[in-house]
Amino acid sequence: MKDKLLYEGKAKQVFTVKDSDELLVLSYKNDATAFNGEKKANFEGKGRYNNLISAKVFEYLRKNGVNSHFKEALNETEQLVEKTTIIPLEVVVRNVAAGSIVRRLGIEEKSTFHPPLVEFYYKKDELGDPFISDSHALLLTDATEDELAQIKQMVLRVNEKLQAFFKEIHLQLVDFKLEFGRNQTGEIILSDEVSPDTCRLWDVRTGEKMDKDVFREDLGDLISVYDQILTRLEAIQ
Amino acid sequence: MKDKLLYEGKAKQVFTVKDSDELLVLSYKNDATAFNGEKKANFEGKGRYNNLISAKVFEYLRKNGVNSHFKEALNETEQLVEKTTIIPLEVVVRNVAAGSIVRRLGIEEKSTFHPPLVEFYYKKDELGDPFISDSHALLLTDATEDELAQIKQMVLRVNEKLQAFFKEIHLQLVDFKLEFGRNQTGEIILSDEVSPDTCRLWDVRTGEKMDKDVFREDLGDLISVYDQILTRLEAIQ
Repeated sequence: MKDKLLYEGKAKQVFTVKDSDELLVLSYKNDATAFNGEKKANFEGKGRYNNLISAKVFEYLRKNGVNSHFKEALNETEQLVEKTTIIPLEVVVRNVAAGSIVRRLGIEEKSTFHPPLVEFYYKKDELGDPFISDSHALLLTDATEDELAQIKQMVLRVNEKLQAFFKEIHLQLVDFKLEFGRNQTGEIILSDEVSPDTCRLWDVRTGEKMDKDVFREDLGDLISVYDQILTRLEAIQ
Repeated sequence: MKDKLLYEGKAKQVFTVKDSDELLVLSYKNDATAFNGEKKANFEGKGRYNNLISAKVFEYLRKNGVNSHFKEALNETEQLVEKTTIIPLEVVVRNVAAGSIVRRLGIEEKSTFHPPLVEFYYKKDELGDPFISDSHALLLTDATEDELAQIKQMVLRVNEKLQAFFKEIHLQLVDFKLEFGRNQTGEIILSDEVSPDTCRLWDVRTGEKMDKDVFREDLGDLISVYDQILTRLEAIQ
Protein backbone atom coordinates (compact mmCIF):
# COMPACT_ATOMS: atom_id res chain seq x y z
CA MET A 1 0.00 0.00 0.00
CA LYS A 2 2.66 2.56 0.96
CA ASP A 3 4.64 4.09 -1.83
CA LYS A 4 7.30 6.80 -1.41
CA LEU A 5 8.77 8.30 1.75
CA LEU A 6 7.39 11.82 1.79
CA TYR A 7 8.82 13.11 5.04
CA GLU A 8 10.73 11.79 8.03
CA GLY A 9 10.09 13.38 11.43
CA LYS A 10 11.59 12.64 14.82
CA ALA A 11 9.03 9.98 15.71
CA LYS A 12 7.35 8.99 12.44
CA GLN A 13 7.86 8.50 8.75
CA VAL A 14 5.18 9.63 6.33
CA PHE A 15 4.61 7.70 3.09
CA THR A 16 2.45 8.40 0.09
CA VAL A 17 -0.17 5.81 -0.83
CA LYS A 18 -0.15 4.28 -4.31
CA ASP A 19 -2.81 5.78 -6.55
CA SER A 20 -4.21 8.03 -3.83
CA ASP A 21 -3.98 11.77 -3.39
CA GLU A 22 -6.02 11.72 -0.22
CA LEU A 23 -4.30 9.15 1.96
CA LEU A 24 -0.96 8.74 3.69
CA VAL A 25 0.69 6.00 5.72
CA LEU A 26 2.25 6.97 9.06
CA SER A 27 4.99 4.63 10.19
CA TYR A 28 5.90 4.96 13.87
CA LYS A 29 9.61 4.80 14.65
CA ASN A 30 11.37 3.47 17.73
CA ASP A 31 13.26 6.74 18.23
CA ALA A 32 12.67 8.87 21.29
CA THR A 33 13.80 12.49 21.48
CA ALA A 34 13.42 15.11 24.18
CA PHE A 35 14.46 18.69 24.92
CA ASN A 36 14.17 19.71 21.27
CA GLY A 37 16.19 16.77 20.07
CA GLU A 38 19.08 17.22 22.51
CA LYS A 39 18.38 13.88 24.20
CA LYS A 40 17.96 10.89 21.91
CA ALA A 41 17.50 7.15 22.23
CA ASN A 42 16.00 4.18 20.47
CA PHE A 43 13.60 1.78 22.18
CA GLU A 44 12.81 -1.52 20.49
CA GLY A 45 9.03 -1.75 20.28
CA LYS A 46 8.21 1.89 20.98
CA GLY A 47 6.85 2.51 17.48
CA ARG A 48 4.45 -0.41 17.90
CA TYR A 49 3.12 0.88 21.23
CA ASN A 50 2.58 4.41 19.98
CA ASN A 51 0.90 3.18 16.81
CA LEU A 52 -1.48 0.87 18.66
CA ILE A 53 -2.22 3.27 21.52
CA SER A 54 -2.72 6.21 19.16
CA ALA A 55 -5.07 4.08 17.03
CA LYS A 56 -7.15 3.23 20.10
CA VAL A 57 -7.32 6.90 21.11
CA PHE A 58 -8.42 8.02 17.65
CA GLU A 59 -11.01 5.23 17.45
CA TYR A 60 -12.41 6.27 20.82
CA LEU A 61 -12.54 9.92 19.77
CA ARG A 62 -14.33 8.98 16.54
CA LYS A 63 -16.93 7.00 18.50
CA ASN A 64 -17.36 10.12 20.64
CA GLY A 65 -17.90 12.50 17.79
CA VAL A 66 -14.38 13.85 17.30
CA ASN A 67 -13.03 13.16 13.85
CA SER A 68 -9.35 13.06 13.04
CA HIS A 69 -7.13 12.16 10.13
CA PHE A 70 -7.04 8.53 11.40
CA LYS A 71 -8.56 5.87 9.14
CA GLU A 72 -7.25 2.55 10.47
CA ALA A 73 -4.24 0.73 11.87
CA LEU A 74 -2.64 -1.20 9.02
CA ASN A 75 -0.28 -3.32 11.05
CA GLU A 76 1.72 -3.17 14.27
CA THR A 77 3.60 0.04 13.43
CA GLU A 78 1.63 1.74 10.68
CA GLN A 79 -1.64 3.53 10.25
CA LEU A 80 -3.56 4.88 7.32
CA VAL A 81 -4.55 8.53 7.63
CA GLU A 82 -6.22 11.24 5.61
CA LYS A 83 -3.69 13.53 3.97
CA THR A 84 -3.56 16.98 5.51
CA THR A 85 -1.33 20.00 5.29
CA ILE A 86 -0.10 20.44 8.84
CA ILE A 87 -0.73 23.83 10.47
CA PRO A 88 2.60 24.57 12.18
CA LEU A 89 1.13 24.79 15.68
CA GLU A 90 1.57 22.51 18.65
CA VAL A 91 -1.57 22.99 20.70
CA VAL A 92 -0.98 22.10 24.33
CA VAL A 93 -3.80 21.55 26.82
CA ARG A 94 -2.90 21.56 30.51
CA ASN A 95 -5.09 20.25 33.30
CA VAL A 96 -2.31 20.13 35.88
CA ALA A 97 0.97 22.12 35.99
CA ALA A 98 4.00 20.05 34.97
CA GLY A 99 7.04 20.42 32.79
CA SER A 100 7.96 23.63 30.97
CA ILE A 101 5.22 25.80 32.45
CA VAL A 102 6.57 25.19 35.95
CA ARG A 103 10.06 26.29 34.96
CA ARG A 104 8.99 29.08 32.60
CA LEU A 105 6.30 30.82 34.63
CA GLY A 106 7.09 29.70 38.17
CA ILE A 107 3.67 28.03 38.52
CA GLU A 108 3.72 25.45 41.31
CA GLU A 109 3.98 21.86 40.06
CA LYS A 110 0.70 19.92 40.33
CA SER A 111 -1.47 23.01 40.66
CA THR A 112 -4.64 22.54 38.60
CA PHE A 113 -6.06 24.72 35.86
CA HIS A 114 -9.79 25.56 35.80
CA PRO A 115 -10.57 26.00 32.97
CA PRO A 116 -7.81 23.93 31.35
CA LEU A 117 -5.02 26.07 29.92
CA VAL A 118 -4.64 26.04 26.13
CA GLU A 119 -1.29 27.12 24.69
CA PHE A 120 0.06 27.46 21.16
CA TYR A 121 3.66 26.69 20.29
CA TYR A 122 5.11 27.47 16.88
CA LYS A 123 6.22 24.19 15.30
CA LYS A 124 9.66 25.15 14.05
CA ASP A 125 12.58 22.95 15.07
CA GLU A 126 15.29 25.52 14.38
CA LEU A 127 13.59 27.98 16.78
CA GLY A 128 12.98 25.30 19.44
CA ASP A 129 9.16 25.37 19.03
CA PRO A 130 8.68 28.68 20.88
CA PHE A 131 5.55 29.47 22.86
CA ILE A 132 3.39 31.99 20.95
CA SER A 133 0.20 33.98 21.39
CA ASP A 134 -2.91 33.97 19.21
CA SER A 135 -1.64 37.11 17.46
CA HIS A 136 1.63 35.38 16.62
CA ALA A 137 -0.27 32.33 15.35
CA LEU A 138 -2.20 34.60 12.99
CA LEU A 139 1.07 36.07 11.73
CA LEU A 140 3.02 32.82 11.42
CA THR A 141 0.42 30.41 10.06
CA ASP A 142 -2.37 30.61 7.49
CA ALA A 143 -5.00 29.90 10.18
CA THR A 144 -7.68 32.58 10.56
CA GLU A 145 -9.04 33.98 13.81
CA ASP A 146 -12.16 31.82 13.41
CA GLU A 147 -10.06 28.74 12.81
CA LEU A 148 -7.96 29.38 15.93
CA ALA A 149 -11.19 29.70 17.92
CA GLN A 150 -12.42 26.47 16.36
CA ILE A 151 -9.14 24.72 17.24
CA LYS A 152 -9.45 25.89 20.86
CA GLN A 153 -12.99 24.55 21.06
CA MET A 154 -11.89 21.24 19.56
CA VAL A 155 -8.99 20.74 21.97
CA LEU A 156 -11.20 21.40 24.98
CA ARG A 157 -13.69 18.82 23.65
CA VAL A 158 -10.85 16.34 23.04
CA ASN A 159 -9.59 17.04 26.55
CA GLU A 160 -12.96 16.15 28.10
CA LYS A 161 -13.19 12.94 26.13
CA LEU A 162 -9.59 11.91 26.78
CA GLN A 163 -9.81 12.61 30.50
CA ALA A 164 -12.67 10.08 30.62
CA PHE A 165 -10.82 7.66 28.35
CA PHE A 166 -7.67 7.58 30.45
CA LYS A 167 -9.58 7.63 33.73
CA GLU A 168 -11.00 4.23 32.77
CA ILE A 169 -7.48 2.84 32.86
CA HIS A 170 -6.60 4.72 36.05
CA LEU A 171 -4.50 7.42 34.43
CA GLN A 172 -4.78 11.13 35.05
CA LEU A 173 -4.41 13.21 31.87
CA VAL A 174 -2.06 15.94 33.08
CA ASP A 175 -1.40 17.64 29.75
CA PHE A 176 -1.04 16.77 26.07
CA LYS A 177 -0.10 18.15 22.68
CA LEU A 178 -2.26 18.07 19.57
CA GLU A 179 -1.60 19.03 15.98
CA PHE A 180 -4.08 19.97 13.30
CA GLY A 181 -4.00 19.85 9.54
CA ARG A 182 -6.08 21.11 6.69
CA ASN A 183 -7.55 18.36 4.50
CA GLN A 184 -8.20 18.63 0.80
CA THR A 185 -11.62 20.19 1.29
CA GLY A 186 -10.02 22.92 3.44
CA GLU A 187 -11.43 21.59 6.71
CA ILE A 188 -9.22 21.65 9.82
CA ILE A 189 -8.98 18.23 11.41
CA LEU A 190 -7.08 16.64 14.28
CA SER A 191 -3.87 15.05 12.98
CA ASP A 192 -0.55 13.63 14.16
CA GLU A 193 -0.73 11.20 17.10
CA VAL A 194 -2.04 10.92 20.65
CA SER A 195 0.20 8.64 22.64
CA PRO A 196 2.32 8.52 25.81
CA ASP A 197 4.89 10.41 23.70
CA THR A 198 2.53 13.38 23.43
CA CYS A 199 0.56 13.15 26.72
CA ARG A 200 1.57 13.37 30.36
CA LEU A 201 -0.21 10.53 32.15
CA TRP A 202 0.05 9.93 35.88
CA ASP A 203 -1.13 6.73 37.54
CA VAL A 204 -4.14 7.71 39.66
CA ARG A 205 -3.31 5.21 42.40
CA THR A 206 0.48 5.49 42.70
CA GLY A 207 1.16 8.94 41.20
CA GLU A 208 3.79 7.34 38.96
CA LYS A 209 4.61 8.99 35.64
CA MET A 210 3.54 6.78 32.75
CA ASP A 211 4.66 8.69 29.67
CA LYS A 212 7.71 10.06 27.89
CA ASP A 213 8.84 11.79 31.10
CA VAL A 214 10.15 8.33 32.07
CA PHE A 215 12.68 8.86 29.26
CA ARG A 216 13.14 12.63 29.78
CA GLU A 217 13.86 12.19 33.49
CA ASP A 218 15.45 8.70 33.42
CA LEU A 219 12.79 7.27 35.70
CA GLY A 220 12.89 3.66 34.59
CA ASP A 221 12.07 1.37 31.69
CA LEU A 222 10.04 3.27 29.08
CA ILE A 223 8.90 0.18 27.21
CA SER A 224 7.42 -1.56 30.24
CA VAL A 225 5.46 1.61 31.00
CA TYR A 226 4.10 1.86 27.43
CA ASP A 227 3.31 -1.87 27.57
CA GLN A 228 1.36 -1.30 30.77
CA ILE A 229 -0.79 1.35 29.07
CA LEU A 230 -1.57 -0.87 26.08
CA THR A 231 -2.32 -3.82 28.37
CA ARG A 232 -4.74 -1.74 30.41
CA LEU A 233 -6.44 -0.46 27.24
CA GLU A 234 -6.81 -3.99 25.88
CA ALA A 235 -8.26 -5.20 29.19
CA ILE A 236 -11.20 -2.80 29.07
CA GLN A 237 -12.31 -3.76 25.56
CA MET B 1 8.27 66.58 49.37
CA LYS B 2 9.62 63.04 49.06
CA ASP B 3 9.71 60.99 52.21
CA LYS B 4 10.82 57.34 52.42
CA LEU B 5 12.34 55.09 49.76
CA LEU B 6 9.58 52.60 49.01
CA TYR B 7 11.20 50.56 46.26
CA GLU B 8 14.31 50.63 44.12
CA GLY B 9 14.10 49.27 40.58
CA LYS B 10 16.73 48.97 37.88
CA ALA B 11 16.10 52.43 36.45
CA LYS B 12 14.14 54.32 39.11
CA GLN B 13 13.66 54.81 42.81
CA VAL B 14 10.15 55.21 44.19
CA PHE B 15 9.55 57.43 47.24
CA THR B 16 6.50 58.02 49.37
CA VAL B 17 5.22 61.59 49.65
CA LYS B 18 4.86 63.19 53.07
CA ASP B 19 1.24 63.29 54.25
CA SER B 20 -0.10 61.71 51.08
CA ASP B 21 -1.47 58.27 50.43
CA GLU B 22 -2.18 58.99 46.80
CA LEU B 23 1.10 60.30 45.46
CA LEU B 24 4.63 59.02 44.90
CA VAL B 25 7.87 60.52 43.68
CA LEU B 26 9.77 58.70 40.91
CA SER B 27 13.47 59.43 40.87
CA TYR B 28 15.22 58.45 37.62
CA LYS B 29 18.63 56.83 38.04
CA ASN B 30 21.65 56.97 35.75
CA ASP B 31 21.89 53.17 35.62
CA ALA B 32 21.36 51.31 32.36
CA THR B 33 20.70 47.59 32.25
CA ALA B 34 20.03 45.23 29.37
CA PHE B 35 19.48 41.52 28.71
CA ASN B 36 17.64 41.04 32.01
CA GLY B 37 20.30 42.81 34.00
CA GLU B 38 23.26 40.91 32.56
CA LYS B 39 24.73 44.05 31.01
CA LYS B 40 25.03 47.06 33.26
CA ALA B 41 26.48 50.56 33.09
CA ASN B 42 26.04 54.02 34.54
CA PHE B 43 25.66 57.11 32.36
CA GLU B 44 25.98 60.52 33.99
CA GLY B 45 22.87 62.50 33.03
CA LYS B 46 20.74 59.56 31.83
CA GLY B 47 18.24 59.92 34.69
CA ARG B 48 17.71 63.57 33.78
CA TYR B 49 17.02 62.78 30.11
CA ASN B 50 14.59 59.99 30.84
CA ASN B 51 12.77 62.09 33.42
CA LEU B 52 12.40 65.09 31.12
CA ILE B 53 11.56 63.07 28.00
CA SER B 54 9.06 60.88 29.86
CA ALA B 55 7.43 64.00 31.31
CA LYS B 56 7.02 65.46 27.82
CA VAL B 57 5.51 62.22 26.54
CA PHE B 58 3.02 61.98 29.41
CA GLU B 59 2.06 65.66 29.00
CA TYR B 60 1.46 65.11 25.29
CA LEU B 61 -0.62 62.02 25.97
CA ARG B 62 -2.68 63.91 28.57
CA LYS B 63 -3.37 66.71 26.06
CA ASN B 64 -4.47 63.97 23.65
CA GLY B 65 -6.90 62.33 26.01
CA VAL B 66 -4.71 59.55 27.44
CA ASN B 67 -4.33 59.84 31.18
CA SER B 68 -1.46 58.30 33.09
CA HIS B 69 -0.09 58.30 36.60
CA PHE B 70 2.02 61.37 35.71
CA LYS B 71 1.28 64.61 37.60
CA GLU B 72 4.30 66.87 37.00
CA ALA B 73 8.05 66.99 36.74
CA LEU B 74 9.40 68.18 40.09
CA ASN B 75 12.96 68.84 39.04
CA GLU B 76 15.55 67.53 36.59
CA THR B 77 15.41 63.91 37.72
CA GLU B 78 12.15 63.49 39.61
CA GLN B 79 8.47 63.44 38.85
CA LEU B 80 5.33 63.35 40.93
CA VAL B 81 2.94 60.53 40.06
CA GLU B 82 -0.32 59.04 41.24
CA LYS B 83 0.24 55.99 43.42
CA THR B 84 -0.74 52.74 41.71
CA THR B 85 -0.31 49.07 42.38
CA ILE B 86 1.60 47.85 39.35
CA ILE B 87 0.02 45.01 37.35
CA PRO B 88 2.99 42.69 36.70
CA LEU B 89 2.74 42.91 32.90
CA GLU B 90 5.06 44.48 30.40
CA VAL B 91 2.84 45.34 27.46
CA VAL B 92 4.87 45.59 24.27
CA VAL B 93 3.53 47.18 21.08
CA ARG B 94 5.42 46.47 17.87
CA ASN B 95 5.03 48.42 14.63
CA VAL B 96 8.21 47.03 13.08
CA ALA B 97 10.06 43.79 13.82
CA ALA B 98 13.23 44.31 15.89
CA GLY B 99 14.94 42.78 18.88
CA SER B 100 13.66 39.66 20.64
CA ILE B 101 10.84 38.87 18.19
CA VAL B 102 13.33 38.51 15.34
CA ARG B 103 15.43 36.02 17.29
CA ARG B 104 12.54 34.21 18.97
CA LEU B 105 10.13 33.76 16.09
CA GLY B 106 12.40 34.13 13.07
CA ILE B 107 10.42 37.13 11.80
CA GLU B 108 12.49 39.17 9.38
CA GLU B 109 13.96 42.34 10.91
CA LYS B 110 12.19 45.54 9.79
CA SER B 111 9.06 43.75 8.56
CA THR B 112 6.02 45.76 9.59
CA PHE B 113 2.97 44.68 11.57
CA HIS B 114 -0.53 45.66 10.42
CA PRO B 115 -2.26 45.84 12.84
CA PRO B 116 0.49 46.54 15.38
CA LEU B 117 1.40 43.49 17.42
CA VAL B 118 0.56 43.61 21.14
CA GLU B 119 2.43 41.25 23.46
CA PHE B 120 2.31 40.60 27.18
CA TYR B 121 5.41 39.71 29.19
CA TYR B 122 5.21 38.61 32.80
CA LYS B 123 7.13 41.14 34.88
CA LYS B 124 9.19 38.83 37.05
CA ASP B 125 12.95 39.37 37.17
CA GLU B 126 13.81 35.90 38.47
CA LEU B 127 12.03 34.32 35.47
CA GLY B 128 13.57 36.77 32.98
CA ASP B 129 10.22 38.46 32.18
CA PRO B 130 8.87 35.61 30.01
CA PHE B 131 6.50 36.18 27.12
CA ILE B 132 2.97 35.08 28.06
CA SER B 133 -0.49 34.74 26.51
CA ASP B 134 -3.72 36.33 27.64
CA SER B 135 -4.65 33.11 29.45
CA HIS B 136 -1.38 33.21 31.38
CA ALA B 137 -1.97 36.88 32.23
CA LEU B 138 -5.35 35.94 33.70
CA LEU B 139 -3.68 33.24 35.80
CA LEU B 140 -0.66 35.25 36.93
CA THR B 141 -2.16 38.68 37.61
CA ASP B 142 -5.36 39.97 39.17
CA ALA B 143 -6.41 41.57 35.87
CA THR B 144 -9.76 40.42 34.48
CA GLU B 145 -10.54 39.55 30.87
CA ASP B 146 -12.27 42.92 30.46
CA GLU B 147 -9.29 44.74 31.91
CA LEU B 148 -6.88 42.97 29.54
CA ALA B 149 -9.10 44.00 26.63
CA GLN B 150 -9.13 47.55 27.99
CA ILE B 151 -5.33 47.55 28.29
CA LYS B 152 -5.00 46.38 24.67
CA GLN B 153 -7.29 49.16 23.50
CA MET B 154 -5.31 51.70 25.51
CA VAL B 155 -1.93 50.63 24.15
CA LEU B 156 -3.15 50.84 20.57
CA ARG B 157 -4.46 54.34 21.26
CA VAL B 158 -1.14 55.30 22.90
CA ASN B 159 0.67 53.84 19.89
CA GLU B 160 -1.26 56.05 17.46
CA LYS B 161 -0.59 59.14 19.52
CA LEU B 162 3.08 58.36 20.09
CA GLN B 163 3.72 57.57 16.44
CA ALA B 164 2.53 61.09 15.63
CA PHE B 165 4.47 62.57 18.54
CA PHE B 166 7.79 61.04 17.51
CA LYS B 167 7.19 61.64 13.81
CA GLU B 168 7.25 65.38 14.56
CA ILE B 169 10.86 64.98 15.66
CA HIS B 170 11.72 62.67 12.77
CA LEU B 171 11.74 59.43 14.74
CA GLN B 172 10.00 56.22 13.80
CA LEU B 173 8.38 54.45 16.75
CA VAL B 174 9.47 50.86 16.11
CA ASP B 175 8.22 49.32 19.36
CA PHE B 176 7.77 50.22 23.01
CA LYS B 177 6.89 48.81 26.41
CA LEU B 178 4.19 50.12 28.71
CA GLU B 179 3.19 49.22 32.23
CA PHE B 180 -0.13 49.72 33.94
CA GLY B 181 -1.16 50.10 37.54
CA ARG B 182 -4.35 50.16 39.53
CA ASN B 183 -5.02 53.43 41.35
CA GLN B 184 -6.83 53.77 44.65
CA THR B 185 -10.25 53.91 42.99
CA GLY B 186 -9.48 50.60 41.24
CA GLU B 187 -9.04 52.16 37.81
CA ILE B 188 -6.27 50.87 35.54
CA ILE B 189 -4.00 53.67 34.38
CA LEU B 190 -0.83 53.99 32.35
CA SER B 191 2.17 54.03 34.70
CA ASP B 192 5.97 53.70 34.71
CA GLU B 193 7.84 55.70 32.04
CA VAL B 194 7.95 56.26 28.28
CA SER B 195 11.49 57.12 27.26
CA PRO B 196 14.27 56.00 24.93
CA ASP B 197 14.91 53.31 27.57
CA THR B 198 11.49 51.80 26.87
CA CYS B 199 10.98 52.63 23.16
CA ARG B 200 12.84 51.70 20.00
CA LEU B 201 13.20 54.90 17.98
CA TRP B 202 14.85 55.03 14.57
CA ASP B 203 15.83 58.28 12.88
CA VAL B 204 13.53 58.63 9.87
CA ARG B 205 16.21 60.26 7.73
CA THR B 206 19.33 58.26 8.59
CA GLY B 207 17.87 55.00 9.95
CA GLU B 208 20.10 55.38 13.03
CA LYS B 209 18.98 53.80 16.28
CA MET B 210 18.22 56.48 18.86
CA ASP B 211 17.35 54.51 21.97
CA LYS B 212 18.72 52.02 24.50
CA ASP B 213 19.85 49.74 21.66
CA VAL B 214 22.83 52.13 21.41
CA PHE B 215 23.83 50.71 24.80
CA ARG B 216 22.65 47.14 24.17
CA GLU B 217 24.59 46.91 20.92
CA ASP B 218 27.49 49.29 21.74
CA LEU B 219 26.63 51.58 18.85
CA GLY B 220 28.02 54.83 20.22
CA ASP B 221 27.49 57.46 22.90
CA LEU B 222 24.13 56.90 24.59
CA ILE B 223 24.02 60.30 26.26
CA SER B 224 24.50 62.27 23.07
CA VAL B 225 21.63 60.30 21.50
CA TYR B 226 19.29 60.98 24.44
CA ASP B 227 20.39 64.63 24.38
CA GLN B 228 19.48 64.79 20.69
CA ILE B 229 15.96 63.55 21.44
CA LEU B 230 15.40 66.09 24.20
CA THR B 231 16.83 68.89 22.03
CA ARG B 232 14.48 67.98 19.17
CA LEU B 233 11.51 67.86 21.56
CA GLU B 234 12.37 71.26 23.02
CA ALA B 235 12.75 72.75 19.53
CA ILE B 236 9.16 71.99 18.52
CA GLN B 237 7.60 73.60 21.58
